Amino acid sequence: MIIVMRQDASREMAQEVARRVEAMGLKSHLIFGEERTVIAAIGDDRRKDREKFESCPGVDSVMKVLAEYKIASRETKNEPTVVQALDLKMGGGYFGVIAGPCSVESEPQILETARLVKAAGAHGLRGGAFKPRTSPYSFQGMKEEGLKLLAAAREETGLAIVTEVMTPHHVDLVCEYADILQIGARNMQNYHLLQAVGECPKPVMLKRGASATMEEFLLAAEYILDQGNQQVVLCERGIRTFESHTRFTLPLASVPYLHSKTHLPIIIDPSHGTGHANLVPAMCSASVAVRADGMMVEVHPDPSNAMSDGAQSLTPTVFEQTMRECEQIARALGITLS
Amino acid sequence: MIIVMRQDASREMAQEVARRVEAMGLKSHLIFGEERTVIAAIGDDRRKDREKFESCPGVDSVMKVLAEYKIASRETKNEPTVVQALDLKMGGGYFGVIAGPCSVESEPQILETARLVKAAGAHGLRGGAFKPRTSPYSFQGMKEEGLKLLAAAREETGLAIVTEVMTPHHVDLVCEYADILQIGARNMQNYHLLQAVGECPKPVMLKRGASATMEEFLLAAEYILDQGNQQVVLCERGIRTFESHTRFTLPLASVPYLHSKTHLPIIIDPSHGTGHANLVPAMCSASVAVRADGMMVEVHPDPSNAMSDGAQSLTPTVFEQTMRECEQIARALGITLS
Amino acid sequence: MIIVMRQDASREMAQEVARRVEAMGLKSHLIFGEERTVIAAIGDDRRKDREKFESCPGVDSVMKVLAEYKIASRETKNEPTVVQALDLKMGGGYFGVIAGPCSVESEPQILETARLVKAAGAHGLRGGAFKPRTSPYSFQGMKEEGLKLLAAAREETGLAIVTEVMTPHHVDLVCEYADILQIGARNMQNYHLLQAVGECPKPVMLKRGASATMEEFLLAAEYILDQGNQQVVLCERGIRTFESHTRFTLPLASVPYLHSKTHLPIIIDPSHGTGHANLVPAMCSASVAVRADGMMVEVHPDPSNAMSDGAQSLTPTVFEQTMRECEQIARALGITLS
Amino acid sequence: MIIVMRQDASREMAQEVARRVEAMGLKSHLIFGEERTVIAAIGDDRRKDREKFESCPGVDSVMKVLAEYKIASRETKNEPTVVQALDLKMGGGYFGVIAGPCSVESEPQILETARLVKAAGAHGLRGGAFKPRTSPYSFQGMKEEGLKLLAAAREETGLAIVTEVMTPHHVDLVCEYADILQIGARNMQNYHLLQAVGECPKPVMLKRGASATMEEFLLAAEYILDQGNQQVVLCERGIRTFESHTRFTLPLASVPYLHSKTHLPIIIDPSHGTGHANLVPAMCSASVAVRADGMMVEVHPDPSNAMSDGAQSLTPTVFEQTMRECEQIARALGITLS
Repeated sequence: MIIVMRQDASREMAQEVARRVEAMGLKSHLIFGEERTVIAAIGDDRRKDREKFESCPGVDSVMKVLAEYKIASRETKNEPTVVQALDLKMGGGYFGVIAGPCSVESEPQILETARLVKAAGAHGLRGGAFKPRTSPYSFQGMKEEGLKLLAAAREETGLAIVTEVMTPHHVDLVCEYADILQIGARNMQNYHLLQAVGECPKPVMLKRGASATMEEFLLAAEYILDQGNQQVVLCERGIRTFESHTRFTLPLASVPYLHSKTHLPIIIDPSHGTGHANLVPAMCSASVAVRADGMMVEVHPDPSNAMSDGAQSLTPTVFEQTMRECEQIARALGITLS
Repeated sequence: MIIVMRQDASREMAQEVARRVEAMGLKSHLIFGEERTVIAAIGDDRRKDREKFESCPGVDSVMKVLAEYKIASRETKNEPTVVQALDLKMGGGYFGVIAGPCSVESEPQILETARLVKAAGAHGLRGGAFKPRTSPYSFQGMKEEGLKLLAAAREETGLAIVTEVMTPHHVDLVCEYADILQIGARNMQNYHLLQAVGECPKPVMLKRGASATMEEFLLAAEYILDQGNQQVVLCERGIRTFESHTRFTLPLASVPYLHSKTHLPIIIDPSHGTGHANLVPAMCSASVAVRADGMMVEVHPDPSNAMSDGAQSLTPTVFEQTMRECEQIARALGITLS
Repeated sequence: MIIVMRQDASREMAQEVARRVEAMGLKSHLIFGEERTVIAAIGDDRRKDREKFESCPGVDSVMKVLAEYKIASRETKNEPTVVQALDLKMGGGYFGVIAGPCSVESEPQILETARLVKAAGAHGLRGGAFKPRTSPYSFQGMKEEGLKLLAAAREETGLAIVTEVMTPHHVDLVCEYADILQIGARNMQNYHLLQAVGECPKPVMLKRGASATMEEFLLAAEYILDQGNQQVVLCERGIRTFESHTRFTLPLASVPYLHSKTHLPIIIDPSHGTGHANLVPAMCSASVAVRADGMMVEVHPDPSNAMSDGAQSLTPTVFEQTMRECEQIARALGITLS
Repeated sequence: MIIVMRQDASREMAQEVARRVEAMGLKSHLIFGEERTVIAAIGDDRRKDREKFESCPGVDSVMKVLAEYKIASRETKNEPTVVQALDLKMGGGYFGVIAGPCSVESEPQILETARLVKAAGAHGLRGGAFKPRTSPYSFQGMKEEGLKLLAAAREETGLAIVTEVMTPHHVDLVCEYADILQIGARNMQNYHLLQAVGECPKPVMLKRGASATMEEFLLAAEYILDQGNQQVVLCERGIRTFESHTRFTLPLASVPYLHSKTHLPIIIDPSHGTGHANLVPAMCSASVAVRADGMMVEVHPDPSNAMSDGAQSLTPTVFEQTMRECEQIARALGITLS
C-alpha cells in the first residue's frame, strides 16, 4: 500500500503514519518528494484495514498495490480451472452452453425446451424454480415443484441443471436437485448465501452484480472459495449504466480482463446483458470470439407467452441458428463447444 | 400500458396484440397514427406481465403508465407516514438524527459514542453488529455480543437502536435487541429478507441499492409493506456512478422526488454517500435544507483506529459542530430535529 | 407522443393538453383509463417541442413514440450505406480495418507504421495531427506538418487516411489531406463542427460521446446528414461507467442495436474502448463476430515510447496476430475484410 | 508517480523502468516488496507522459500522486477567488444568483423575466442566444439578435448577463454583449473554445461535462487559466448516470470536494441537474446549505410555452418563494446572497 500525504502535512505526521504501518506488522518506507511525502508499506497487507489510514492527520489518499482476493488470483494458481457438471465443461478451452427458459413453468414447457436446446448442442439446462422478482406481484417461481421438473428433464436428456438458490435456508434443497447452483446478480454480495454454497459439494455459478467492480466480483468468489468449494464459474451478465436501449450494458472486455487476473472460468449471459432477443445472437457469436468459457442463453418455446423475461428469450429456431454460427467461430478458433 | 408497433407491422399484428390485451382482462384501444400504430391497454395492469408484449410479432416497445408499487404510493395514501422508535421521529416535519460508529467494537467504544452523540442532539444510535464486508478477510462484526452492547447503550442513553440484519435466519434475534432493523444496500433486493422483516413488529430502514432505480427501491419497500409492516423508512445512501473522488454519488434530488411519489419518510446517509469525512458536514446541512426526514451519520471517538469505515467517520467534535449548523437551518425552515 | 396525466388531474386539464396538441398541427386522442387519462398525439411530431407538455398543469410525463432522427433512420432508407475511401470499405458486408498510431510523431514513425499495418491487412491509416488532450500540458499534435506526413504515407502505401478535425476553422485544411474526417468523442455534440463537416466532400467518422445515448448519437449524425453529406460512419468507442479496470466500457451490443435502427455503418474502437493493449486483441475478434462494419485500432512501432496512448497501442507483431484471427472469423462468417 | 510492477516481472524490468524515470528528469526510487516491486518517481511529473510506463515490459499499473492541474489548485493559491460581474459576486462568502429563461425568445419575454428575477433578488440574468440542441430540428436560438435583447435587459435592470458561446469564431461577438461567457457542458472539452475564452477579458462560467471526472473538469478550467484569464467559475450541472427519473444526477458533494481542491468558485445548476421544475426549489435550498458559491436557475414567465426546457423552468412565483427560503438559510449560515 502507498500512503500519500497532503502537501501541507508535517514531517511528524508522516512519521506517525509510518509508526502505524510498522505497528500493523508491515515495513514502512518514507519517500520525501519535492511536493509530497509518500509512505510505502511493504508486506502482505491484504488482510489489514488499509482504509483507516485515510483518517490519520495529514493523509491525502491511500493506494492499494495488492488486490484483496487471493485464492481466486492467477498469482496463486496459474492454470485455468475447468468446471464440469455431467457433460458440460467450462474453462481451459471448453466453451459450455447453457440454455433454457427464464422460469420453469410446467412439465411440457421444460421438457420440450430441454429436448430442443439439447438437439441444438447445449450441454446445460437453465430454468428458475425460485425466482427473484423486482415486484412482489410478479410470478415467484414453482419452487420445489420446479426443481423436480428440472430433474426430470435431466433424467431424459442428460443435460446438467443450472438453477438459482436465493437464500441460505434453501441451499440443501436446491443442492439435491441441481448440478450447478446459481447465485443471482442481486445476491452477489449476500455473504451468508455465499458462505452456504461454499460448503456445498456442487459447483457454483456466480453472477456479477449490476454495479459490482471486478474486485468486488472476485472477492464475492473468494467468499465461496474460502469455504472450500473450488468449483466456481463467474458469469458476466451486464452492468447498470446510463444506457436505456439495452436492459444492462454487457462489457465483453471483462473476459480478457478476468482471464488475466483469475484462473476461474468466465461465461457470458447475453440475454440479461441486452434484454432484447434481437440483440442476443450477435452477442453469442461475440462471446465465443472473445474467448469466454461459455454462455447462458434464455430460450423459450413461445416467448410471447413466457411467464417471465419473454422479451429477451430466443425461440428454439433462432437458438438453433445462433448455435450454428457459434460453432463456425469456435471451429475457426480451435475452441471446443461443450 | 402503451404498446408501440413497429413501422412495418401489419394491421393484423396490432389486432393480435389488442386481443392479448383483452385476454388479460384489460380494455384495448387501437390508435392508427401516420407512421405507427399504438395500442393503449386500459385498466390496472400493475400485476400483469407487461414485458411479454415485447415478444409479440410487430411490437417495437412497451411503455408503462402505472408504476408497479401501490401500497408505497402517495396515490394510495397521501398523508406522510411518521416512523417513530422511542424519541426518534422521521417524517411529517420531523428530521430524525441517527449517529454512531460503523461497527460496534467494544463496550467503552459504543457507550462513549452513544453519550457523545446524544449530547450533540441525536435520538438514534447506529452501530453494526453483523457487518456485510466486501472481503471475507475483513472484520465481520461482534454479532450477538454487539447487539447486547447496543441494548446496554440504549439502556443508559435512551437512544433508539438502528442496526443491520443480513439474513432471514437472524431476523428474530436482531428484532429482540433493535428498535429499527436496517436492511443494507447490498440486500435491498434480498427478497426473502424483505419478507422476513415485513413480518416483524419493528420499523425497518431500507437502504437504496447502489444501482437501484427509484421504482426498484419502492418495489423493495412494497415487499415489506405487503407483509403488513407499515413502518418503513427509505434511506438514500448514494449510487454507483463513474465518479471516483467520492465512494458513491449522493443524489439529494431523491428527496423531493420520493416525497412526490410516496408517503414513506426518506433519510440521507452522507457518510456512505460520500465516503470521506471532510465532505460529510456540508452534506448534512444540505440534507436538512432539501427537507429530508432525517440523516444517519457515522461518528467514531477515534476514526483512525476504527475497525471499519474510519475514512468516512466524523469525530465527536466535528459532529457536534455539524449538528449546530443543522439546527440553525432547521430553525430557519421550521423543521423539528428529533 | 403519449402524454400521461397525473391521477389527480382534472378532465379540463386533459382537454387543455389536447387543445395544445391540436394547436401544434397534430391530432389528439383522449383515453380515459381507470386511474389515469392519457392523450395520444398523432402525426409527425419529430420537429415539435414535445418537452413543453411537461409544464402543462396536470401532466405527469410525456413519452415519445417517434425517434427524432429521420435521415439516419432505417425507416427512411433500408439498404445499408457503404462508406468507401480508396480501398477501405465499411458497411454492407465489408469490415474495414483502420490502424495506426494515436498521434503522428515523425516521418519515420508514421511511414514505418503505415507499411506494417498495410502488410498486416489494414486498408486505412489512423493518426492524429490535431490532438484533443485532457491536459493543456500534454502534447497537442504536429498539426499541419502531421497532415503532410499522413499524405506522404498514403502516397507510399495507398492506405486511406483517417484523421481528426477539432474545430470548424480547420475543416478545409484537414479536408485537403484526409480521406475520412474523424469527429472525436468529445466533439460529438459540437454542432458547429458537425455542420461544417456536413458541408465537406469527404466521408466523416463520428465517434460516440462517452455519455451519449443512442438517440443523441444518431441525432449528431443527423446534423451531418442534414447538411447533405451522406457518407457517415458511426464509431462505438466505449462509454463512461463505474468500471475503472478499463478506460471506458465498450458495449458491443451497440452494433446489432444500431444496425436495427440505422443504415449507416458502425465500427468499433477497441483501443479507446478498453485502454489496455492486452484487452484489445480479444475485442477485435469480438468486433468481427458481432458483425461490426469495421474497427479502428491503435498500433505503434514502440508503444512504450509513444507520445500519447502508449498503454493501449498494439505492437506491430500483436496487430499482425490479431488480424490473422480476425480473418479466420471473417472467413467463417462470410464477411469481407477490407 | 508510483509504478507497480507485475508479480512475475524481473529485477531487470524494474531497473529499466527506473532508468526511464531518470531519463525524464525525475528521481527514481525502487522498493522491493514481498510480492511486488514498486518504483517511486520523485519530482514534478505533471507535464510528463505518465501513461507510457504502462507499456513498459513488466509494468502492472501506474498511480499518479500529483493531480495534473496546477493553476487551478488550492496548493498554488489558497485564498478563494471571487468572480464579479456588475453586482453579481460568486465566491469568498458570496452566493451569486443567476436566473432567467433557457432561451431568449423575444423582447417582452426577456425584459419581463429580467424584471421579475431582479425583483426576487437575482443579480445575474441567464438566457441563451446561441443554443446547442441535441436535434438539428430544434430551435437554435435568436443568435446576435438575442444578444442585443440581453444587453437591453441589462440596460434596464443592471443585471449581469450570462450567456453561452459555442464556437471560437463567436467569442468576440459574445464577449461584446455578455458579462460572463458560459461554456456549456457539451463543450467542456472543446479545447479551441477554451483557449479562445481564455484570451477574453470577461469572466467565464465553465459547466461540467455530463461524464467529466473532477480532474478533467479542473483541467478544462486549467486550459482557460493557462491563457491568462483568471476569472473562472465552475458550474456543477449534473452527471449522466443510470437514473432516469431525473434528467441528470446532481452531486452536491462536488461543492465541498472542489472547495478542498481549488480556489475557484463553484455554483450549482439545479434546473439542468434535475430536469423537472418540481425538484428545483428543494435543490436550490440545498445548494445554499452545502455552501456553493451561487446557483443558476431557469425561470420563464410561461414555462408551458417556452421554446426550450419548459419542463425544468420555474414560474416567477415559485422562483420568488424559492429565493425567500434561500435567504433564510443564507442568513442562518452567514452567507451573503448576491
